[in-house]
Parts: sequence; structure tokens; C-alpha cells
Amino acid sequence: MLNFDRDRFLAIQSGALALAGPIHAAIGAALAGGAKNIFFLGTGGAAILMQPAALMLQRRSGFPAFMEIAAELVASGHHALGRDSIVVIPSLSGTTKESVATLDYCRERGATVIALVGHSDTPLGLKADHAFVNFAEDDTSSESFYLQSLLVALSVMAHRSEFPGYDGTVAELATLPQHLLAAKRAFEPEAERLAEAFRTEPYHIITAAGGSWAEAWYYGMCILEEMQWIRTRPVHAADFFHGTLELVEKGVSVIVFKGEDAYRPLTDRVEKFVRDFTDKVTVLDTARFAMPGVSAETRALVSPVVLATILERLSAHLEVKRNHPLTTRRYYKKVSY
Amino acid sequence: MLNFDRDRFLAIQSGALALAGPIHAAIGAALAGGAKNIFFLGTGGAAILMQPAALMLQRRSGFPAFMEIAAELVASGHHALGRDSIVVIPSLSGTTKESVATLDYCRERGATVIALVGHSDTPLGLKADHAFVNFAEDDTSSESFYLQSLLVALSVMAHRSEFPGYDGTVAELATLPQHLLAAKRAFEPEAERLAEAFRTEPYHIITAAGGSWAEAWYYGMCILEEMQWIRTRPVHAADFFHGTLELVEKGVSVIVFKGEDAYRPLTDRVEKFVRDFTDKVTVLDTARFAMPGVSAETRALVSPVVLATILERLSAHLEVKRNHPLTTRRYYKKVSY
Repeated sequence: MLNFDRDRFLAIQSGALALAGPIHAAIGAALAGGAKNIFFLGTGGAAILMQPAALMLQRRSGFPAFMEIAAELVASGHHALGRDSIVVIPSLSGTTKESVATLDYCRERGATVIALVGHSDTPLGLKADHAFVNFAEDDTSSESFYLQSLLVALSVMAHRSEFPGYDGTVAELATLPQHLLAAKRAFEPEAERLAEAFRTEPYHIITAAGGSWAEAWYYGMCILEEMQWIRTRPVHAADFFHGTLELVEKGVSVIVFKGEDAYRPLTDRVEKFVRDFTDKVTVLDTARFAMPGVSAETRALVSPVVLATILERLSAHLEVKRNHPLTTRRYYKKVSY
Repeated sequence: MLNFDRDRFLAIQSGALALAGPIHAAIGAALAGGAKNIFFLGTGGAAILMQPAALMLQRRSGFPAFMEIAAELVASGHHALGRDSIVVIPSLSGTTKESVATLDYCRERGATVIALVGHSDTPLGLKADHAFVNFAEDDTSSESFYLQSLLVALSVMAHRSEFPGYDGTVAELATLPQHLLAAKRAFEPEAERLAEAFRTEPYHIITAAGGSWAEAWYYGMCILEEMQWIRTRPVHAADFFHGTLELVEKGVSVIVFKGEDAYRPLTDRVEKFVRDFTDKVTVLDTARFAMPGVSAETRALVSPVVLATILERLSAHLEVKRNHPLTTRRYYKKVSY
């Protein structure tokens, strides 16, 4: 595979999953200590990557879960945030300005802060009550944060007897790095072909639903916009028919991400529509990738992870075909703002 | 003012605010009947317009408030939805397919459904437990839905003694239609100038924060995309610096909506940045509009309403300058999907 380090990839994703035990212990301690709710408070892409886990908790668990825009929470406060709150803050660098401000704000209010970081010797790593460290870089952090936040959500539900299959699910997840690697390999030729097709494409509508919506939002904003300077319109499949559809005509690129959770029919509907009205439809469907031994329920949970891992292959080819390194920025870390 | 019916506008917004009493009574009855949570379940634009009210409840009230994508909730269920739930469903037509499915789903589970509709003799109007009817059309529905959902949220908090100034706020809101009319008048020349500047502009990044974020999302998707077929990138001011900023360069249009709530500093930061890197910056700031007798707290609550009302003027000029009627669609009500 192009510009890919197999061992590094496996180590990073296995590293994320090896946190299952420590995360389960930390959540258990917080719940035993009287925690009454949980906040997922990320910034930018890291926030988006926790969305599937937060959504699952909100919809399936009786434990109040809040997913807030961290900078807004710090600006206005939140009635439920306090001594009985668990706060999860992810930041690969461990230094993201807004995330450090969020940590300080939550600690002052007595919350138990769990930081998910790439380096321990950072403001977030040092000041959190529990810092879970898994080194990753831009090309491997999506899967890692999806998995770590999923482990947090599953642990909350398991401790509350809301997810009886916890042990089995964690065991299945432990096999995921190899399945992700196989998915990358299977997708590699298509990644190159797509990168060629997208080489001069100036604009993409990207849509998805359920857990996979996070990946549409993330890939549009944090990869295509930030790292390739390509215009995107991430739009939820449920919103698509209430405005954005009118932009679709011959020549307009629409990318549909399809996962395997209960929300898949929402993306079927978009796919059916756009195939009639534009010649540039790209469907990325996690169902194509065999993952022997992984149950349908777990496949649904990890659909955004599978999408992230195959899309990393697309990015790897895009930067070469477009002669635009993924690390090139106009502004980030170049000007202050 | 261009293509504007003053009396019709005032009647529609006053009609929304005249629902304060009936809404307060219905919420009071539901709470007295043991309601334990509230769901805001809209579809497309109508969902977005309830977001400021839902966010306020989530952050300021101890009453659990959920804002869910209706089509997803129907697909997967939600642990908290049941006999003790109040469900608010807005639909101007009263016939939106997904909204009718949502109503049926929630009624089957025993929830108390409040429908906000433009016509009583519609599926939503007829099947809801409480149907609040206020006729409006596309050019007047934004303010109307913002206000009705705000009245719902304020009522919940008032009944729970979480908003002691309820009566005063409702009295201030009753004066709002005249203030909105004055804001439209004051903005009219700028609306024409902006429409001329935007006439051939193919793409806008639109950003905002707090309650006003809803209007950035709504105006991009439901007006510029749906009614003018102009590409937009609605992006929250907090997300802006985590990807989308890299698209900004000379010639790229960035529109910043500034409201008066606690989240205004997030948009100050974007404004400061973009002024350095593109020559096409449009700032629409609600603080410019005098509203004598309206307190700072109420001004913060109605900032998205003020934005919606001045933006309607922009739309009125855009359709003329661009020779593209706001009612023209490629697909909506023309093909089935």
C-alpha cells in the first residue's frame, strides 16, 4: 500500500483497544463514586470522532450523556456539569487551546476528567484525573478516537447492566486492527482510482447517517477542507432532502457513506435519488468488507471506524495525485488566531 | 420594502406570540400529568429552527430535553421516549412525510405530542394532542417557529421555577413584531447592496455560534441552497478553526452572523481572522438594531429571530437580482424520493 506502515498502524489501533481495561476501571470507579452524568467535550475533529459513542449512550442508556461544543460550554456553563460529572476530553496533541481551557473549567467545577491524548507529558495529559495515552498521528487518530470513545460508552452501559454483551464485544474489537488492515488492502485499488477521479474535483457533497455521519462531517472538514483545500458540503442524509438536494445536477460529486447501523435506510434513500440526477456518485459501503468473527451488532458500532480506515487510503493517494501533502496548511500553526 | 406585506408579516409574528398562553397551559398540563422529559423532533429546516430553544433547555434547565433527528429516532428508538414524554413537532405544511411518521411513532409510545403547524386540517394538526396553528409561509415561518419553540422552552422552565422572569419576557416578546419590522426597514438598503454583491457569487462559508448557529445552518441549507441553488458551507464558529479556515483566501465569501448571547466571542474570533485573509467578509450583527424596551437577556434569546428577519430581506432582493424566484425547485414536489 502507498505510503503505509503496517506495523505502526496495527500498534496504534491495538494500543487504543488495549485501553479497554483501564477505561473500564476508571469509569467503574467514577460510577462507584457517584457520577451521575457524562460529558463528551472535544474540539474540532476530535469532538466529531466521539459523536457515535455519545449518540449511542444518549439513545440507548439511561445515564445522561451530553455532547457539547466545548467552547460554548465554557462560555455559558451547563446546569448538569459538576462534581458528579465524568468529562471526556480527547486531544491528540494534548495541547489544543480550547481543550485545555475546557479541562480547567471542568476541573474547577469538580468534575472527573478523562483525557484521551497522544502524549502524557502535555497539559491535558498532566492535569486530567485519568489520562489515557495512545500515540497516533493524523493518519491513524480517527480510528483510535472512535474506538476509545466507544470503549467509554460501552463501559458506562456495561457497569449499569445495559450492555450484557460487553465482554464479547470487547473481545471482537480486539480483532479489529487486522480486519481494518484487510479493508485497507481490499480498498487500495479503488482508493487510487477515486483519487484520480477526484484529482481536479472542486466540490463534494458528502452525506451519511447514524454513527457514520460523524465520518462524513470529519472527512469533509478535517481532511478534504483542511488538508487538501477542497470545498465540501457535509450534510446529514436526513437533511439532504430539505435543501441541499437542489444543488445536485450532472457533474456534481456526491459521496454517500453507508454504515451498517439502523440508520442505513436513510442513506439508501439518498443513493437512490442521486443516481438519477448526477453522473458523479461515489458510495462507500462498509458492508463490502468481510470481518470474520465480528457480529452484526459490532459491525454496526464500528462502521465509522471502517470508513475512516479506508478513507485514509483515499487521502494517501489524493496527496500524491494532487501534489498537495496532507500536512500543508495555509494557516494552522502558521498564523495565530 | 421590496415585495413585502407589512400587515401580513405583523399578523403572522403576532400570531406566533399569541400562542404563549395556550402553549403555557399545554405544557403546564403535561408537566402536571407527570411528563419527565421533552423531545424536539423536527425535520429539515423546521428542526433547525427549534435548536436554539432546545439548546437553552439542555444547558439551563434540569428538565431533560432531547433534540433528535426525527428519522433516526424512528429508525432506532430512544430509551427516554415514552408515556412521560412531551414531543414537539413543527411542520408548516402539517404534511411533511417524516414528521407524520414521527408523530405516529411517538403517539404509539404514549407520548404527548404538540404540533406546531400552519394549518389545522392536516395529518399533524389532526393527530396531535395539542395542535398550535399559526399560518405562515416560507418568508415568515423562520421567525414564527423560532418564537413558538422559544415559548415552549420558556414555559417548561417557568413551570419549574427555573425562569422567574417569564411574564416579563413574554411581555417583551409581544413587542417584537414591531421591532422586527423596524429591523427589516433599517436593513433594506444593505439587503439590496448585498444581493447585488452576491448575485454571481458561487459559494459562501456561513458561520455563527450559540443560538444564531441555527440561522447560519438554516439560511445556508434552506434558502441559499434550496431556493437559490447557491453552494454554501454552514460551519459552526467553533469548528471553523479546525478545518474550514484553510479554504479562506482572497475572493472567498465568508458570512459571519453575530448574535448577542454568551457565545458571541466565538464569532468575534472568526471575524478577526477572516478580515485578514479575504476581501469578501460580510458580518450581520444583531446588535445594530435598536429594540427599545427589550432587555439584553431577551435580545440574546431572539438574536436568531432578528437574523432571520433581516435575511428575509436579502432573499427578497436575491431572487430579483438573480432572476431566480425563491419558489423555483429542481426536485422538491417535482419528483418523488
